[in-house]
Amino acid sequence: MIIGGGAAGSTAAQFARKQDRDAEITVLERGEYPEYSRCGMPNVLAGDIPKFEDLVEFSTDWFERNRIRLKLSTETTSVDLSAKKVEFRSPEGNGVERFDSLVFATGASPAPLNIEGLAKEGVFQFRGINDSKALQNWCAKKKRNVLIVGAGLVGLEVADALSKMRHRVTVVEYLDQVLPAMIDPDIAEPVAAMAKKASISIITSSFVRSLAGGSAVEAAEIVSRADSSPSKLKCDTVVLAAGQRPSTDLGVKIGCSMGAKGHIRVNSRCETNQPGVFAVGDCAEYLDFVTGEPLAAGLGTLAVKMGEVAGRNSAGGTATLPKGFINSRVTRLFGMEIAAAGPLYSSLAGKGIACVQSRMKGSTLPPYFPGGKDLTVKLVCTDQGQLLACQIIGEKEAAMRVDIVSAIISAGQGAKELTQLDNAYAPSVAPCVDVLAAAAQGILIKIGRK
Amino acid sequence: MIIGGGAAGSTAAQFARKQDRDAEITVLERGEYPEYSRCGMPNVLAGDIPKFEDLVEFSTDWFERNRIRLKLSTETTSVDLSAKKVEFRSPEGNGVERFDSLVFATGASPAPLNIEGLAKEGVFQFRGINDSKALQNWCAKKKRNVLIVGAGLVGLEVADALSKMRHRVTVVEYLDQVLPAMIDPDIAEPVAAMAKKASISIITSSFVRSLAGGSAVEAAEIVSRADSSPSKLKCDTVVLAAGQRPSTDLGVKIGCSMGAKGHIRVNSRCETNQPGVFAVGDCAEYLDFVTGEPLAAGLGTLAVKMGEVAGRNSAGGTATLPKGFINSRVTRLFGMEIAAAGPLYSSLAGKGIACVQSRMKGSTLPPYFPGGKDLTVKLVCTDQGQLLACQIIGEKEAAMRVDIVSAIISAGQGAKELTQLDNAYAPSVAPCVDVLAAAAQGILIKIGRK
Repeated sequence: MIIGGGAAGSTAAQFARKQDRDAEITVLERGEYPEYSRCGMPNVLAGDIPKFEDLVEFSTDWFERNRIRLKLSTETTSVDLSAKKVEFRSPEGNGVERFDSLVFATGASPAPLNIEGLAKEGVFQFRGINDSKALQNWCAKKKRNVLIVGAGLVGLEVADALSKMRHRVTVVEYLDQVLPAMIDPDIAEPVAAMAKKASISIITSSFVRSLAGGSAVEAAEIVSRADSSPSKLKCDTVVLAAGQRPSTDLGVKIGCSMGAKGHIRVNSRCETNQPGVFAVGDCAEYLDFVTGEPLAAGLGTLAVKMGEVAGRNSAGGTATLPKGFINSRVTRLFGMEIAAAGPLYSSLAGKGIACVQSRMKGSTLPPYFPGGKDLTVKLVCTDQGQLLACQIIGEKEAAMRVDIVSAIISAGQGAKELTQLDNAYAPSVAPCVDVLAAAAQGILIKIGRK
Repeated sequence: MIIGGGAAGSTAAQFARKQDRDAEITVLERGEYPEYSRCGMPNVLAGDIPKFEDLVEFSTDWFERNRIRLKLSTETTSVDLSAKKVEFRSPEGNGVERFDSLVFATGASPAPLNIEGLAKEGVFQFRGINDSKALQNWCAKKKRNVLIVGAGLVGLEVADALSKMRHRVTVVEYLDQVLPAMIDPDIAEPVAAMAKKASISIITSSFVRSLAGGSAVEAAEIVSRADSSPSKLKCDTVVLAAGQRPSTDLGVKIGCSMGAKGHIRVNSRCETNQPGVFAVGDCAEYLDFVTGEPLAAGLGTLAVKMGEVAGRNSAGGTATLPKGFINSRVTRLFGMEIAAAGPLYSSLAGKGIACVQSRMKGSTLPPYFPGGKDLTVKLVCTDQGQLLACQIIGEKEAAMRVDIVSAIISAGQGAKELTQLDNAYAPSVAPCVDVLAAAAQGILIKIGRK
């Protein structure tokens, strides 16, 4: 029994089926769509993908072919762990189902915001297809003055998309940098500069106190955190992208052990403290590979990895997660890839971990070959040279380089191994000495190993 | 004292200087150019790089700034190891120089070919700038009928370049596939198909017995190895690209230990059996990381890696190579990246190493995002799942994926770790589940670990 049919839940269903050809597998999904790529929604908004329905990855046909019962528009209302039953409300009425094992894939919902006037017309969430479609339709009517609340991944991706569609976009961020959960301030700076170049206004260290207007939003009151000074911004559209919180009410009720930020804790089998109950994806919390601390990154890749392990184990398998997640991540904004792996430097330093960083500029091609694209690489290592994290910006192949570093981090190796990496080189493809190796050399010099 | 100023020798000079600010460093280079990228020569021929001089990476200025004496057009005629002296012939006359340590960076020269008529006009080597310029000038005069001897890396890169410049190109290869030293037959097949699509004739399992004509070449006699049947091919241009042999006469004379194919053997300090004498680049032989056997791959990346280690050690340093080279390599042919790491499957199987392979097709982007480019990935693992090798073809990001695999191979990890690799995913950048992970899954299934 899988509660939630997003990426994590559907992958769990897929691997439960791979594990056991005869298992009865049911997915209860609150929404009306079968699994689709949430990550692709900004790309539809930007016109890069024709329509939201194209984002469906596990279609209803796929569920049928794999003999997995998918119940859409079905809200799970209670779980009885001793009786091994769930109750749900579906378009066909209420129901009860027995289960042998249970997977929570309940995802997350937008974090509540303390802003007056959120009920006004012109205010949108961007969590699911319906939200996103409503925003798209609204914006199709005329050029909008858009205020986006939150300069995280979703906020900036929506900002980029709407700006491409020639709307006027302002982004307000509570913290003092863009992408605060993804990259360090020194890497965020060029991203903010790109946003400005794309005619997007970024207002950091500020929050939205209220939305003014009649039934529809007409303006926002923005307050600077530095001096509490308010200012007024004219806008007819507001997109709320200030984070999400895990949907875990059912898990809490049955006594699942919960993390500090409200996620369901799982072990390396993706199992909660309740035997036979698993949790995957945005509602779950596992471990950070580098720090060993709890990690709930809310990434599609991790949802799929957890889905595989929980799916197999819920059907009798013995799959395990690695000892932690490296949290590799990337977005494309303003034509650039912004990619990272591992914890932020600031968070490591804040934990008292002795670490050094090295930043290096390079190119995707050797200097003599025309058309190379700039890359900025930042590596973070322990003071012994072990790799902990990296952040890379470039028009292309930034994510691929993060994957290389991710492989090296997960092998417990360091800057030395990165300088020695046997890389494939041809003038029209990649440089002989890559910027990754150059940045790693920088680390070795700093720690006196060179 | 560094004999040879190519990539390996110049890098040795660079790192000798980094190691010791006061060392006296001399590079004796036979040719008339300072270090340039040989790998880029086909790109000049194809018009992607304006001129051959653009390929110079370590300019005479660079040598001056770094207080390294570079003697061009200088042939080293003898080495006296007990007196620690070299003799040379230079444009300014003969000379003698003392040294404390010596680095052989003497490179390689084209392998001799048993073909009648090689002295005719219209026959070219493609080893250095002068050869390549002569070929370019010759081909600039009119559309040529070109015969290329050898379908290795250089042969096919020249074929691709000349075909782009609208010359008619035929390639004759002694072995039964293209790129025989680089990829396995199953991956070579699509490359041969691409060549044909680019209107290049490929004749495998055949050799050129003689060139006919007056003072200039007019035709070639090509013999099939299967039935010894000869055929005649009209051609006015012949490019010899049938491999090279290391230039090691001086090393042999002073008693350097030599490998089976005539390369100078070095240890992990890049030192020969003669103390204080180092060898780097195409003239040297080190170890294959995967098999532990001798490896002389003749790659620019390995020349640079060896140059760094020998350069430092020749100036008093204590640098070491990794335990072996993974031999990562890539070329761009017919618009596609053809990339590989590790030994060929055929060579591993031939050594009796129990290994399995998995081939998988995928894309650079998720299926719902337009513009993804096909990738074909082949992985080779031990029957325990340890990664040994990979070969990848794709329009882009094949080399980057080879680098990821290279990192995993060098960490001694395997298919399991590749399926667990924490990869950076965004719809417009890379898929959630990469083709590398899918191919690794294929291995795990084959060896019964999934």
